[in-house]
Amino acid sequence: MKTYKALEERYESLITRENRVNDRFYNGIFERYVYPVLTREHIPPFWMYDPDPKTNPHMMQRLGINAVLNSGAIYLDGKFILVCRVEGMDRKSFFAVAESDTGVDHFRFWDHPVVLPDTEKDETNVYDMRLTRHEDGWIYGVFCSESHDSSSGDLSAAVAKAGIVRTRDLKTWERLPDLKTLRSPQQRNVVLHPEFVNGKYAFYTRPMDDFIETGSGGGIGFGLCDDITRAVIDEEKMTSIRRYHTITEAKNGAGCVPFKTKRGWIHIAHGVRNTAAGLRYVIYAFATALDDPSRVIAEPGGYLIAPLGSERVGDVSNVVFTNGCSVAPDGRVFIYYASSDTRMHVAVSDLERLEDYVFNTPADPLRSADCVRQRDDFITKNLKYLGK
Amino acid sequence: MKTYKALEERYESLITRENRVNDRFYNGIFERYVYPVLTREHIPPFWMYDPDPKTNPHMMQRLGINAVLNSGAIYLDGKFILVCRVEGMDRKSFFAVAESDTGVDHFRFWDHPVVLPDTEKDETNVYDMRLTRHEDGWIYGVFCSESHDSSSGDLSAAVAKAGIVRTRDLKTWERLPDLKTLRSPQQRNVVLHPEFVNGKYAFYTRPMDDFIETGSGGGIGFGLCDDITRAVIDEEKMTSIRRYHTITEAKNGAGCVPFKTKRGWIHIAHGVRNTAAGLRYVIYAFATALDDPSRVIAEPGGYLIAPLGSERVGDVSNVVFTNGCSVAPDGRVFIYYASSDTRMHVAVSDLERLEDYVFNTPADPLRSADCVRQRDDFITKNLKYLGK
Repeated sequence: MKTYKALEERYESLITRENRVNDRFYNGIFERYVYPVLTREHIPPFWMYDPDPKTNPHMMQRLGINAVLNSGAIYLDGKFILVCRVEGMDRKSFFAVAESDTGVDHFRFWDHPVVLPDTEKDETNVYDMRLTRHEDGWIYGVFCSESHDSSSGDLSAAVAKAGIVRTRDLKTWERLPDLKTLRSPQQRNVVLHPEFVNGKYAFYTRPMDDFIETGSGGGIGFGLCDDITRAVIDEEKMTSIRRYHTITEAKNGAGCVPFKTKRGWIHIAHGVRNTAAGLRYVIYAFATALDDPSRVIAEPGGYLIAPLGSERVGDVSNVVFTNGCSVAPDGRVFIYYASSDTRMHVAVSDLERLEDYVFNTPADPLRSADCVRQRDDFITKNLKYLGK
Repeated sequence: MKTYKALEERYESLITRENRVNDRFYNGIFERYVYPVLTREHIPPFWMYDPDPKTNPHMMQRLGINAVLNSGAIYLDGKFILVCRVEGMDRKSFFAVAESDTGVDHFRFWDHPVVLPDTEKDETNVYDMRLTRHEDGWIYGVFCSESHDSSSGDLSAAVAKAGIVRTRDLKTWERLPDLKTLRSPQQRNVVLHPEFVNGKYAFYTRPMDDFIETGSGGGIGFGLCDDITRAVIDEEKMTSIRRYHTITEAKNGAGCVPFKTKRGWIHIAHGVRNTAAGLRYVIYAFATALDDPSRVIAEPGGYLIAPLGSERVGDVSNVVFTNGCSVAPDGRVFIYYASSDTRMHVAVSDLERLEDYVFNTPADPLRSADCVRQRDDFITKNLKYLGK
């Protein structure tokens, strides 16, 4: 591997490797795949290595990449596109576009990462872009913009806001002013709804009292604004809320841009609980009404995706997180999720199965005694059907 | 796997798989086994899947199970019985009985989970039952009963108490009032001693100042009560205590119901220390006097069982925890332990070896300088024996 050519060959063999369904996993709701769809190994060698042996005689990495994680997704012109969070070894993230014909393998980064207009001079880091193809004709990217909290004496204190960009082609990006939420000092995990609601732009938000804690109550908020080029939200209504002793006890937040089924908007979000070994992030789903996308009409108990096997371990272990789904023209739904802040995977389902899952999975009864009754009734019915 | 029959076949092949000793592990004290004895894969498919293709056309999981963990154990009518903590995908736990002829494999859940009398309306979750065959003729289950701390503004704040049930057959359960400890506001990891002490019921307790922290001092407590149908403990004496820079520095708690050997009661408990990646739980052992089961007479330094290999990782990584041992009529001791809050394993020893371990393993000298002297003296003696 002392030559740049050897690095290129290794890279090509990885990119061209076929993925396949992991047949050791079954739940009837979605399929997992054996390989992650993107890792730092999928980064083009010329992003990391100076290929000239005169200036790089040891063929040494000059600008390493640490991880490829939380990626926005869009199906565009017959391609599955991810706008990835790529994290350098220096902990700073940036965005980069990768595309694939299949959605499950052969993802290849475009030659250049996304270079956003640098309009916010205090901004230290950007990450977790949600891509919304809005009915106004633009593709919007809403992402987290993080700055040092200079009012604090704590070197680690940060302020999180929602940055907004728009594009037609994922190549030329226009940056709009950051979202202002008048009643919430900070924002992360903000998602732009793809349709106008009462003639306005609609955002899913996450009211936060400070940077890490999500405060004493709350959950996923919803707010409207008139002008996306100067987006201001006053009131935030609550949609899917945090509840004691559930998968959303510590916090929750919007994930993918919601997509439409016959019975409602399907949302794929994340929920967090605390453990003796740190936070545990899982992915869950719920539905809101077609005529009011802020009104929850179905919320299955428990999680849709939790870390499994090698997904459990990484830079931030015990985490699965999604901020991008793609719905293909044939109705397949590709849920792109990162595991443990380290690599990207895909779970493949379809509109019919996800609708069945969201509307026919029982809700969380919230108490052990009610949960075991729910389970026991289910068992009794099933044993009767089986003639046992 | 689109048919219920395929799910059943996969389940049967798992249940009938033989376990075997892990011959890559040796310490002379106990044997580990290659496979966990219970995982969520061991849950009967009719607990999770509606088998009727008319109402479940995609053969989709309707009520998933997340984990099988901290299980009470009893040897009853020639069977190894576990009363497991089964956790749904909604994070709520309940109890379910699994039985095996061998104690190391072929554990099969009874058709229905345990449906306890629902007498505590504030109770949100129940878990970690210890099963005591008491000399009064009953089998008692003492478990953790958890409720939301409604006096706190924090949505995650919980209150932990010890719930008490009793049964003759593990099928019909009578719930008694929760244990009251007059000097400790909260309790977890409570174990009922199998014999009367001075004519009273004796409990191992864990005095706690609040839900997660075990307070400024303490360790495993011991208290007596007159009437188990209205169990009240006043004074709690300390047995095995927390010590700085040992395996019990952060907290400790009783595990299995103690069992008798010629030289003393053997206790298998857990100790916890803090790390940069969260808490680390290990299992340790100590002995108390036959004539006073609250008086520690031997406490080996260090742990008996720590997480190994794939045990290290799970929903709450870096944890082994036991709340159930079974002593077979031939003197073998089956220590059932969960790894990383995810699955159940067995470690098999016997009364003779555990007595040897507890009484002949040197105590913790508590200081590095004393530990290295202890080690060097041991090496010198051994080299002399070896003629080196």
